[in-house]
Amino acid sequence: MYRELVLKKISPTVEEKEELKRIANEVINEIKKYTDFDVKLLGSAARDTWLRYEKDLDVFIFFPKDYNKEDMERYVEEIARKIFGKYEKKYAEHPYVRGNYKGYDVEIVPCYKISDPKEKASSVDRTPFHHEFVSKYIKGKEEDVRLLKQFLKNLNLYGAEEKVRGFSGYLCELLIIKYGSFENVLRNATKWKFGEIISFFYVDKSKVLEKFKGQPLIFIDPVDENRNVAAALSVENFYKFIFYAKEFFKSNDKLKFFFKHEEKIQKEYAIELFKKRGTSLIGILIKRPDVIDEIIYSQARKCLRVFRENIERNDFRILLSEFLVSNNNVLFMFELESDKLPRIKLHKGPIVGSKEEERFLRKYRGNIYGDPFIKEDRWYVFAERKYKDIYELINDMLSRKDLKSIGIPSYIEKSIKESGYKLLKNEEVFLDEFLDEIYKRLFPKIL
Amino acid sequence: MYRELVLKKISPTVEEKEELKRIANEVINEIKKYTDFDVKLLGSAARDTWLRYEKDLDVFIFFPKDYNKEDMERYVEEIARKIFGKYEKKYAEHPYVRGNYKGYDVEIVPCYKISDPKEKASSVDRTPFHHEFVSKYIKGKEEDVRLLKQFLKNLNLYGAEEKVRGFSGYLCELLIIKYGSFENVLRNATKWKFGEIISFFYVDKSKVLEKFKGQPLIFIDPVDENRNVAAALSVENFYKFIFYAKEFFKSNDKLKFFFKHEEKIQKEYAIELFKKRGTSLIGILIKRPDVIDEIIYSQARKCLRVFRENIERNDFRILLSEFLVSNNNVLFMFELESDKLPRIKLHKGPIVGSKEEERFLRKYRGNIYGDPFIKEDRWYVFAERKYKDIYELINDMLSRKDLKSIGIPSYIEKSIKESGYKLLKNEEVFLDEFLDEIYKRLFPKIL
Repeated sequence: MYRELVLKKISPTVEEKEELKRIANEVINEIKKYTDFDVKLLGSAARDTWLRYEKDLDVFIFFPKDYNKEDMERYVEEIARKIFGKYEKKYAEHPYVRGNYKGYDVEIVPCYKISDPKEKASSVDRTPFHHEFVSKYIKGKEEDVRLLKQFLKNLNLYGAEEKVRGFSGYLCELLIIKYGSFENVLRNATKWKFGEIISFFYVDKSKVLEKFKGQPLIFIDPVDENRNVAAALSVENFYKFIFYAKEFFKSNDKLKFFFKHEEKIQKEYAIELFKKRGTSLIGILIKRPDVIDEIIYSQARKCLRVFRENIERNDFRILLSEFLVSNNNVLFMFELESDKLPRIKLHKGPIVGSKEEERFLRKYRGNIYGDPFIKEDRWYVFAERKYKDIYELINDMLSRKDLKSIGIPSYIEKSIKESGYKLLKNEEVFLDEFLDEIYKRLFPKIL
Repeated sequence: MYRELVLKKISPTVEEKEELKRIANEVINEIKKYTDFDVKLLGSAARDTWLRYEKDLDVFIFFPKDYNKEDMERYVEEIARKIFGKYEKKYAEHPYVRGNYKGYDVEIVPCYKISDPKEKASSVDRTPFHHEFVSKYIKGKEEDVRLLKQFLKNLNLYGAEEKVRGFSGYLCELLIIKYGSFENVLRNATKWKFGEIISFFYVDKSKVLEKFKGQPLIFIDPVDENRNVAAALSVENFYKFIFYAKEFFKSNDKLKFFFKHEEKIQKEYAIELFKKRGTSLIGILIKRPDVIDEIIYSQARKCLRVFRENIERNDFRILLSEFLVSNNNVLFMFELESDKLPRIKLHKGPIVGSKEEERFLRKYRGNIYGDPFIKEDRWYVFAERKYKDIYELINDMLSRKDLKSIGIPSYIEKSIKESGYKLLKNEEVFLDEFLDEIYKRLFPKIL
């Protein structure tokens, strides 16, 4: 029932499929004017597993192994200039180009022509082998791949990039090949446990677990047994997927799992709701460094952890810590029980008789709140807090000369040094460009 | 130098010693009028290790092994009535009596006449063997015992009873026998580590550690290798002793280790100082149950732990938790950073997919602060605190019908049920009867 309704929205029509094929052929023929190397359409467009509203074409050019990165880069740039006029240079393990052709996003990716994935120089060299494997087994199950992709997209679990840390398109296809259908993938997922191993062929579980330790889902790549196709999946997203898989079978409203009702939130309303909580919201706004998503998301995530650890070390209680990225800015956001703390705290000192004892006693003996005292095996002292106000703490932290030494990643450090930061307080945090996301984090909703 | 000055104050004069001997003989002769059993003076009076201001006589009556407890009890009560007129019945493992004789505190203790400590029926049966051992080896070192006792008294470390949990008189004597002098005891103590083993004869260290696990100091009883003479010593007091032993050698003012300058504190001054801290003081005052110190201290200590755990479970930050006991009352006292907490907290839920998940989601889904959400492998939700005010928490806790089930010990439960409790707030906690102690805990002083 839901299947037809969903597919009607996400599956391309016969006409759309034909148009895509025609355009792909045009692009390939255009490219072939400028090269004698093999040129191939790969990816979901080539396998008919693309979603209707995605008009992406991944075109690979196969270079001999004696070409170096720089030469390949120049080569594809030259072609891009001729075909697209305007193009972007993108970087993964090595550069590729991206341009628009008659409304389609076209990526031209240089790779090596190799006969065994073991010979690969970078991970894109594996892509043709992925394509070969999937093409062979996916026939007749393309619609199930689309359902799974749409389900994941709707939950913000689709994509292996840093921004999402979810399921790649290739992983979706492999899951459908493994379990046969969209519903079977979900049914199996309801039983997944941390460290779940999936493979098409026999693997030694204990060795695999050792190799991919800390990764919640391990799907052994059929073209390279040393690779986990699900390596990018975060622990959080692994558990989210399992939870929503279960919910899917329990719920009568299957459609909501594919299409979310996005409510447009009013700023005043969001602020009013927030004020009723009585908590404190703190924002640190910086200019977005001019680097790709992959880098900024990874650095912002690390930076958030550094901020959070600093805040917690100073006894503030955090309800929520998030970062949000736009084209221009990065916002770090903390919701605290309170932005103030009492003046005095119990300061835990060293073990009695340890080598730190002398320094501790020298520092605190004669303290106006009383001398240090022994409880169980340890010294304690009543001491004044360094930071009774979160804004003081953050200003002190960010005005340090040595931001790197406290773990602030390079591009974020650079941005702060060059453009400074803006400290936002409560309703000031509700910036228009992040409003919807802020609301979603402050008032989470299970579908 | 300090030695003579201290001994002059704490060592009995020749006249005082003669008086004590005379009185002891009188008491023994009086007792012998009513019994044919052996009667003996034991304890520090008999060994000349008593302190000048202690006028205690421990007189033991040796019963044949076929006497039962009840008969011995009646027997010594009968004697006490005749000698003292007024007497108290006291309870250790079995009852003994206590009365005043010409200004001396006299305890008459019934024990069995046995030839080997292994035959003992209760721990008092060991006392004659302790006496025999100490008498044999302590000669000439009595003054050192006095110095050690005085040193410990001054630091509130003297006595094995629940109130103190420190060093017994017998332990002091054994330490002097073992190390030869007061200063040598301290010198050795500076090197003690948790689980320190001291013995006059060879012992298997690993077996001893296993048997007395958790006890910081293990002094094997020379008359019973299965007993740790220092069993009553608390971890805290073990470390305090080590610390002050070190301090003693570092300090030029040795006298302060024997005689503390006790300042008489003014209530208004104490309250003023406390208010400057800006913390919150909470007192729970109950009527002291009519039981001996040994029981009330043990139960109050346990009760304090129950209170503390309850308070911490509810997120209040404790600086100080203490209990104080007078003849009439027991005061539980907590110093908190603040007596209020913010309304909303981050409530940690179960692991995603665990069996507690369903109940948790049923409870919190649709919560006004947002649905539960997944972080890493777990559910969380923004939830209202049950207790935002410490007084509410304590009133709720103490008005329960089932105080026992939350761990409140029997006599304290009885007292609360019969006489209620009084909740004290900040300056109200500064009760006259506890003023000095409260001040000492709030403003601790290293000598």
